Amino acid sequence: MSRKEDKSPLRIALAGLGTVGTGTLQLLKAQDAILAQRCGRPLQVVAVADLDCKRDRGVDMAGIACYDDALKMIAEVDADVVVELIGGSDGIAKAVCEAALDGGRHVVTANKALIAHHGLVLAQKAEKAGTVLAFEAAVAGGIPIIKALREGLVGNNFTRITGILNGTCNYILTNMRQTGKEFAIVLDEAQKLGYAEADPSFDVDGVDAAHKLAILTSVAFGCKIDFGAVHMEGIRNISARDIALAGELGYRIKLFGITSRTEDGVEQRVHPCLVPLDAPLAHVEDVFNAVEVEGDYVGRSTYEGRGAGDHPTASAVIADIADIARGLRLSAFGVPVADLAEIPTQPMENHCGAYYLRFTVKDAPGVLAAIATELAGEGISLASMIQHDRAKGPSGSVSIVLTTHETIEASMSRALAKIAVLDTVTEPPMLIRIQGE
Amino acid sequence: MSRKEDKSPLRIALAGLGTVGTGTLQLLKAQDAILAQRCGRPLQVVAVADLDCKRDRGVDMAGIACYDDALKMIAEVDADVVVELIGGSDGIAKAVCEAALDGGRHVVTANKALIAHHGLVLAQKAEKAGTVLAFEAAVAGGIPIIKALREGLVGNNFTRITGILNGTCNYILTNMRQTGKEFAIVLDEAQKLGYAEADPSFDVDGVDAAHKLAILTSVAFGCKIDFGAVHMEGIRNISARDIALAGELGYRIKLFGITSRTEDGVEQRVHPCLVPLDAPLAHVEDVFNAVEVEGDYVGRSTYEGRGAGDHPTASAVIADIADIARGLRLSAFGVPVADLAEIPTQPMENHCGAYYLRFTVKDAPGVLAAIATELAGEGISLASMIQHDRAKGPSGSVSIVLTTHETIEASMSRALAKIAVLDTVTEPPMLIRIQGE
Repeated sequence: MSRKEDKSPLRIALAGLGTVGTGTLQLLKAQDAILAQRCGRPLQVVAVADLDCKRDRGVDMAGIACYDDALKMIAEVDADVVVELIGGSDGIAKAVCEAALDGGRHVVTANKALIAHHGLVLAQKAEKAGTVLAFEAAVAGGIPIIKALREGLVGNNFTRITGILNGTCNYILTNMRQTGKEFAIVLDEAQKLGYAEADPSFDVDGVDAAHKLAILTSVAFGCKIDFGAVHMEGIRNISARDIALAGELGYRIKLFGITSRTEDGVEQRVHPCLVPLDAPLAHVEDVFNAVEVEGDYVGRSTYEGRGAGDHPTASAVIADIADIARGLRLSAFGVPVADLAEIPTQPMENHCGAYYLRFTVKDAPGVLAAIATELAGEGISLASMIQHDRAKGPSGSVSIVLTTHETIEASMSRALAKIAVLDTVTEPPMLIRIQGE
Repeated sequence: MSRKEDKSPLRIALAGLGTVGTGTLQLLKAQDAILAQRCGRPLQVVAVADLDCKRDRGVDMAGIACYDDALKMIAEVDADVVVELIGGSDGIAKAVCEAALDGGRHVVTANKALIAHHGLVLAQKAEKAGTVLAFEAAVAGGIPIIKALREGLVGNNFTRITGILNGTCNYILTNMRQTGKEFAIVLDEAQKLGYAEADPSFDVDGVDAAHKLAILTSVAFGCKIDFGAVHMEGIRNISARDIALAGELGYRIKLFGITSRTEDGVEQRVHPCLVPLDAPLAHVEDVFNAVEVEGDYVGRSTYEGRGAGDHPTASAVIADIADIARGLRLSAFGVPVADLAEIPTQPMENHCGAYYLRFTVKDAPGVLAAIATELAGEGISLASMIQHDRAKGPSGSVSIVLTTHETIEASMSRALAKIAVLDTVTEPPMLIRIQGE
């Protein structure tokens, strides 16, 4: 159906045969007939590169050249598309993409760190070469959210995107809620199950979600990607107690990535949130990811699916390859690089929202009054309070839990700084932002 | 970024200025600059047709030719794309699309009835002309589900699609649950609010959802569209009592459209379902639509958004127009018409599932035994039972509510036929299918 009716095979060179690379290779082989029918031409893997290229991956490698050097593969193989599934923001992954684009190849990648850090430069290279740089698999795994933003919702100005973008964190938080166990124990179990990496910091400290959020921000708002502008907090500080208290108040705790466009600029933030139970995202559990998009014509729409794993990620990689096979040629971030805006970053001090606060205090008269006075002094009004009977805390300490109405974060920071130094307050205050509807 | 670098304006002729047509015109005018940037060329409305063409629609009509005869517009205007927003499966809407395709124009339509009944013939005409027939707005309003199936999830074989496809029904069922009111009263209120048509039968009898399901089936499974093969039941028989009892059992009642691909063929059905509260679709409320897709690589993914209304539907119409502007040329149903398979229809007698049954019976000894005996005689095993104290039914009747384990629908039909004629059973049994995870 392509106007150009290019029915020749699309020649694919695949760099990186880890989990996702192997899944992609398997998918291309298993679905080759239906893909050829749907794309109007065969998708043909002509070469693969991996340090351990010869290991059996359950795929017939006949006719596929094997390299242990991806750059050598790109130099030698006549490919239309280079698929980069090596990973890492720099080093060989970046070199592979640059060499492929400089050589006039299309590039498909699942590499969120690479795009978050170097997407702009790579998009410029693609434009110069007249080729495509595509990264559907870099955000929210199998969910075709980049396509939704760039194409399915192209008629909208977006105002806000809210995502559960890291499956490991969502699994840990879900499991903590269901079992009442603490973070460290659930993380340990998740590592044993393969749901978390040996070094979990990219996931649990919010870095991975921030990479994805920076990409979504650029595509949605048509602005230059700016990973450094993302405010980032992880889930290490979330306790089983906070999850239980949130539940008592009618909330679940999720790690959200939120990007908002206001008249003043863009606010990008990754941090744990209290989410009301009647919000669709509150019900996204386990390793699932979800993205809620707000556009001026479509209103709210939500996309949910598996955010990681060999097969869901391969599904997204194939979508990009198929687009190229079918002749779709879009700008990486929705508009040409020259048209990407520089939008001012809104710092978190300016953030306006509601808060959950937990104070650990001595069980003495006047404690609540002292806290409430400091909050009132910053104009912060309270929405609800929980104070249970004396908890079994160390040295007779008790918890006071408050939720607030909307206030400016700078005011909250000032109030908490004053509260933290009160004699009766025995631990640093816990703050979790509330994300309403 | 298009390889062909066609930067000339895309010339659009818009037939039908009702709710969606007006919304589309407004969107094209309001977002013209950003659309031109995103599409790499202007989207220009050159003509509109409507019986009441001259009425003020809040849009500057300078430079737009106005016709009261859509066919005359197509004959006279040099348009690249004809957008059909008249509605109806036959008559003028069909004639407009045929004339546009025969004349070598691309066609974008939001008309589910037209595509469900005549999509195949229209797709053939588009292929012959080398143009595009696109209908994103025909299914689930603003949710880009056709794009997700044909493109974002192109690497998958689909096994099942489950949708809440009619916003009017979902609004009525949500409202019935929240207020405890009966169907007729809520329908009446919905009509007054403009959420239901004066003649609500297309919505509440499941016809509209069946149109959409037939389209999804063809796109997902690559088979010839067959509206007549859809088993169709509406929501008129759902009582406030059934909704309350379902809630007691941990379910909500939703009107589902479900299409499944098995080794034996395709099963397409629209009917009310009991949906467990832990299923994502149970939380899709009010006028929202949602589609849950199961693919062999992506797993389960879910898409939710507004299924109707001028602006959400316009968002989907614009997505199709933008695809054409950007040079995307896909087959209407994902593969060329000649490649669409003829897949046998699975009749509902073969359906295998769990059931909710409500019997209205005389409050006499042995009634439950008689019912249970008939069910057991067909090999149907029970999962749960509710029998409250004597209800205030007419002539002292009481309700017995049972849920069953999975069974074949033919067995269930035979058992219910025998139960219905028992002396102690005073009303026809109520059956609602349970759709599990």
